[in-house]
Amino acid sequence: MPESPSPTHGFPGRLFVFEGLDGSGKSTQAALLGKWLQSRDYRVFFTEWNSSDLVSGVIRRGKKKGLLTPTTFSLLHAVDFADRFERTILPPLRAGYLVVCDRYAYTAFVRDAARGCDPSWVRTIYSFAPRPDRIFYFRVPVQVTLKRKLASRSKINYYEAGMDMGLSDDLQESYVRFQSRLRAEYERLAASDRFTVIDSTRPVEAIQSDLRANLKPLLDGFPTGARLLHDG
Amino acid sequence: MPESPSPTHGFPGRLFVFEGLDGSGKSTQAALLGKWLQSRDYRVFFTEWNSSDLVSGVIRRGKKKGLLTPTTFSLLHAVDFADRFERTILPPLRAGYLVVCDRYAYTAFVRDAARGCDPSWVRTIYSFAPRPDRIFYFRVPVQVTLKRKLASRSKINYYEAGMDMGLSDDLQESYVRFQSRLRAEYERLAASDRFTVIDSTRPVEAIQSDLRANLKPLLDGFPTGARLLHDG
Repeated sequence: MPESPSPTHGFPGRLFVFEGLDGSGKSTQAALLGKWLQSRDYRVFFTEWNSSDLVSGVIRRGKKKGLLTPTTFSLLHAVDFADRFERTILPPLRAGYLVVCDRYAYTAFVRDAARGCDPSWVRTIYSFAPRPDRIFYFRVPVQVTLKRKLASRSKINYYEAGMDMGLSDDLQESYVRFQSRLRAEYERLAASDRFTVIDSTRPVEAIQSDLRANLKPLLDGFPTGARLLHDG
Repeated sequence: MPESPSPTHGFPGRLFVFEGLDGSGKSTQAALLGKWLQSRDYRVFFTEWNSSDLVSGVIRRGKKKGLLTPTTFSLLHAVDFADRFERTILPPLRAGYLVVCDRYAYTAFVRDAARGCDPSWVRTIYSFAPRPDRIFYFRVPVQVTLKRKLASRSKINYYEAGMDMGLSDDLQESYVRFQSRLRAEYERLAASDRFTVIDSTRPVEAIQSDLRANLKPLLDGFPTGARLLHDG
């Protein structure tokens, strides 16, 4: 199952990416893994895709005023990710950290494809983002994410439901249709981009245990914080 | 000299683009041409590349705080142009107008290339923008634009001088170097993209007269506003 441990990105750090639908459990697992790696004395950098200060205001205002087309929507998210990548992900990767990413460029690929952007156009835009050492994809049925969403009593977001796309006037129905599109796109990428697929319906502990086992070959011999300090 | 009058973009309108360095006289000529076309009863839409409301604030703040890398700078300008293209240029082009554009995607190509972005990456991003019916390129020596700039007593802008690129500590020297880079890139595109090259050191009236003559084959038989109204 594990690929070659030598990274294709050429940086001294390692890049572990968590992808999947909202409600797939990937954020929980990413946070648990980050803490475990820290407890093992590795130098860990954990990052989530929250909009950067640079463009979050524009995206919010653009959405509110309905000013965004699929092209501008896609490009704004690319600015957002490029900013996050260059200022947040790249420095620790260069400095030899284990970088744990809750969402990476693949989130943009599935979202933009679901909105009708040309996938090869989108991929070219994100060509500045190197291939991670691992891409964990949390596979989950859309109905399970909906159940989790409703149980958590958090409101379904307008854009998360793809309501701007006119798939259905009903929020819940639109959510299922739009998330199903995202899922289909994730499944396509899982094959083309060699995702490490995680069955997200299993117990939290079992999944976490699998993640750790999967990363073992990449971690063997990788310097811990103490050793790095000593060497420096 | 004139190319085929049938547009490659497939829209009923026509797209005339004016490109060149600041101080090349292109804006003056574009405005004169627009007025002349209107006086001939054509339906004309004139547009300049001023930052759209959507991202101008972000670009300004990003510049001020030095937050922009070449990648995010380039992507933000792409959002800006995509927004302008889809909401301002495309509708009149679809409606059969003569669209006169002071700056188009080529401005982004030269600027991004001068800042070190991969030219083919940049071109792919802008692949949503169709080839215009005419691309008038106002060729001018950089020293002439500098003289015009100094004579107008308008201050040389920090970014216009490429001061963020560390070419020189001296504003004027940096301006010459950066604008020379832009010019070299324009010259490269003039050949690859079949620009209609205008010698910008000639008198205003002579240039305008040439532009009108150059466009004649594209205008012959093109419906005027009155005729369109009658037909509709």
